[in-house]
Amino acid sequence: MVELPRAPVYRIMKRAGAERVSEEAVDAMIEYLEEVIEDLTLKAIKAAEKAGRKTVRRDDVEFIVDILKG
Amino acid sequence: MVELPRAPVYRIMKRAGAERVSEEAVDAMIEYLEEVIEDLTLKAIKAAEKAGRKTVRRDDVEFIVDILKG
Repeated sequence: MVELPRAPVYRIMKRAGAERVSEEAVDAMIEYLEEVIEDLTLKAIKAAEKAGRKTVRRDDVEFIVDILKG
Repeated sequence: MVELPRAPVYRIMKRAGAERVSEEAVDAMIEYLEEVIEDLTLKAIKAAEKAGRKTVRRDDVEFIVDILKG
């Protein structure tokens, strides 16, 4: 079971240029996105802890995204 | 403006172990997820076209995710 809603993910995929997108393709995308959220959150928690905080803030998420994008 | 809803993203971030997460951190996460959807969709469209299809299917998305994960 995926947790993110299908409709907005489908809309973004269509807007990106996909002529047709199967329902299962949307589910596969969501499964990957949920993995990305978990992975990025674990890293953002470490960034917050390194700064002596327990609250994950925008700058923690952006810091990790910048590193991952290289 | 972000398109994905905040509540499920927040829930997944909390479940990943974040003690506290700012609203802005959730927005930063969503902004990144929307970039990921676009980028992955563009690549999945190419995978579908390579297979002579106009429909993006689960296997196209999974093929690209596998490649990106190395």
